[in-house]
Amino acid sequence: MKIIIVGATGTLGKKVTEAFAQKHEIIRVGNTKGDVQVDITNETSIKNMFELIGPFDALISTSGKGPFAPVNQLTGEVFKSGLLDKLLGQINLVLIGQHYINKGGSFTLTSGILSERPVASGSVLSTINGGLNAFILAAAREIGSGIRINAVSPNVVEDSPAFFDSFPGEIPVTMEKVIKAYEKSVLGIITGEVIKVY
Amino acid sequence: MKIIIVGATGTLGKKVTEAFAQKHEIIRVGNTKGDVQVDITNETSIKNMFELIGPFDALISTSGKGPFAPVNQLTGEVFKSGLLDKLLGQINLVLIGQHYINKGGSFTLTSGILSERPVASGSVLSTINGGLNAFILAAAREIGSGIRINAVSPNVVEDSPAFFDSFPGEIPVTMEKVIKAYEKSVLGIITGEVIKVY
Ligand SMILES: NC(=O)c1ccc[n+]([C@@H]2O[C@H](COP(=O)([O-])OP(=O)(O)OC[C@H]3O[C@@H](n4cnc5c(N)ncnc54)[C@H](OP(=O)(O)O)[C@@H]3O)[C@@H](O)[C@H]2O)c1
Ligand SMILES: NC(=O)c1ccc[n+]([C@@H]2O[C@H](COP(=O)([O-])OP(=O)(O)OC[C@H]3O[C@@H](n4cnc5c(N)ncnc54)[C@H](OP(=O)(O)O)[C@@H]3O)[C@@H](O)[C@H]2O)c1
Repeated sequence: MKIIIVGATGTLGKKVTEAFAQKHEIIRVGNTKGDVQVDITNETSIKNMFELIGPFDALISTSGKGPFAPVNQLTGEVFKSGLLDKLLGQINLVLIGQHYINKGGSFTLTSGILSERPVASGSVLSTINGGLNAFILAAAREIGSGIRINAVSPNVVEDSPAFFDSFPGEIPVTMEKVIKAYEKSVLGIITGEVIKVY
Repeated sequence: MKIIIVGATGTLGKKVTEAFAQKHEIIRVGNTKGDVQVDITNETSIKNMFELIGPFDALISTSGKGPFAPVNQLTGEVFKSGLLDKLLGQINLVLIGQHYINKGGSFTLTSGILSERPVASGSVLSTINGGLNAFILAAAREIGSGIRINAVSPNVVEDSPAFFDSFPGEIPVTMEKVIKAYEKSVLGIITGEVIKVY
C-alpha cells in the first residue's frame, strides 16, 4: 500500500510511520521536515502535496494544533486559530484528498480524548475533537467509491510526558496501543468510526 | 430574569421568545430584525450588543448558519463559512458574554441532531454540532462564578417543513418539546449538558 502520513515527523507520527514502514510504501510528510512538506492550514499547499505525490491508498494524519487556554481568557481569535488548524486542516486533507485517492482507499484523522473528557484549558481542543468525530461519522457515510474515513482518538500518550500534568487522573496510553488503532483503521474494513485509545 | 435571545426572530427563536416572555424580561436580538441587531460572525458586533444591553441573567442562542452540501462537492472555504458562523459565532457569545453576565447566569446554545445522526449533505452541520456539544462539556466545567452552559440539540422541528425531506426517517419534534428543553437549561440547575430533543 502507498500511504501518506501527514505529521510523520511528530511524536505520534514517528512511531506510526516506523510501524507501517515495515510492510508499506510510506510518504513522510511534515511541516518543516519529512520527504514532503505541507501546511494543512493552506489549501493550495495541500493541493500541491497531492499533485506531487500522485494517487495513493491511504492517508493518515497525525498533525494539527490547537491552543491550550483557560476559558476565561480565551478570545475568538485564539479559538479560531485552532478551528482553522487541527479541525479544518485535517478536514481539508479529506475534502481535497478525495479527488486524488485510489478507489477503496482510506483516510484516518486524529482527534483525542478531550472531546468527551475535558481538562482545564482544553475547551478549544475539546471543540475540535468533537467536531472531527462528528465529521467522520457524516462524511464516511456519504463519500462513496468505497472510500473509508475514521478517526483515532487517543488519550495522552506515554511519549508526551510534558502533557501528563494537564491530564490529572488519566493513565497515559502506550504507543503500541495507539499504533494498533491506526492499523485497525487503515488495514481493517471499518468506516465512520472513532477508535478510542483510552 | 433578564434574558437575551439571539435569533429571537427565527423559526425556533420566535416560539421560545413567546414562551419566556410570559414571565421574564426578554431582549429580542436578530440579525436584521428584533429589538437589537447583532452579527455573531463579528466579535465587535457582539461586544457592542452586550455593551448596549448591559448585565443580564441568561442568554439563549437560536442563531447560527451552516451550509448544506454533498461532501464530494465541499470546498474548504464553504466548510469554513459554517465553522465561523454557527460554531465560532455561538462560542463567541459565551467567550465575550462571560464578561457581562450576572453571577449564576446561564448560556444556552443550539446544536442539533446531525452531530450523531448524519444525513446527506449535512457534514458541515454535523461537525459544527459535534464541536458545540464538546465545547459545552468543557467550558461549563471550567468557567466558574456559578455560570451554567448547556446546549439544546433538536431534531428537525415541526415548524420547518422545508427541511423534512432532508431528514428521512426522522419524526419532526413539536415546538412544545423544544421550548421545554430551553426551559430546562435556563430555569433548571443543570450545566455542561446537551439536552437532546429527539
Ligand atoms: N501527544 C499526545 O499525547 C496526543 C494525545 C491525543 C491526541 N493527540 C493529537 O495527535 C496529533 C499529533 O500530536 P503530536 O503530539 O504527535 O504532535 P507533534 O509532536 O507536535 O507533531 C506534529 C506533527 O505535525 C506536523 N505539523 C505541524 N504543523 C503542521 C502544519 N501546519 N501542516 C502540516 N503538518 C504540520 C509536524 O511537522 P514538523 O515536524 O515538520 O514540524 C509534526 O510532524 C495532534 O492532533 C494532537 O492533538 C496527541
Ligand atoms: N429549524 C430546525 O428544524 C432546526 C433543527 C435543529 C437545529 N436547528 C438550529 O437552530 C438554530 C435556529 O434555526 P432556525 O430554523 O430557527 O433558523 P432561522 O429561522 O433561519 O432563524 C435564524 C435566526 O438567527 C438570526 N441570525 C441570522 N444570522 C445571524 C447572524 N449572523 N448573527 C446573529 N443572528 C443571526 C436571524 O435573525 P433575522 O431574522 O433578523 O435575520 C433569526 O433570528 C440554528 O442553529 C439551526 O441550525 C434548527
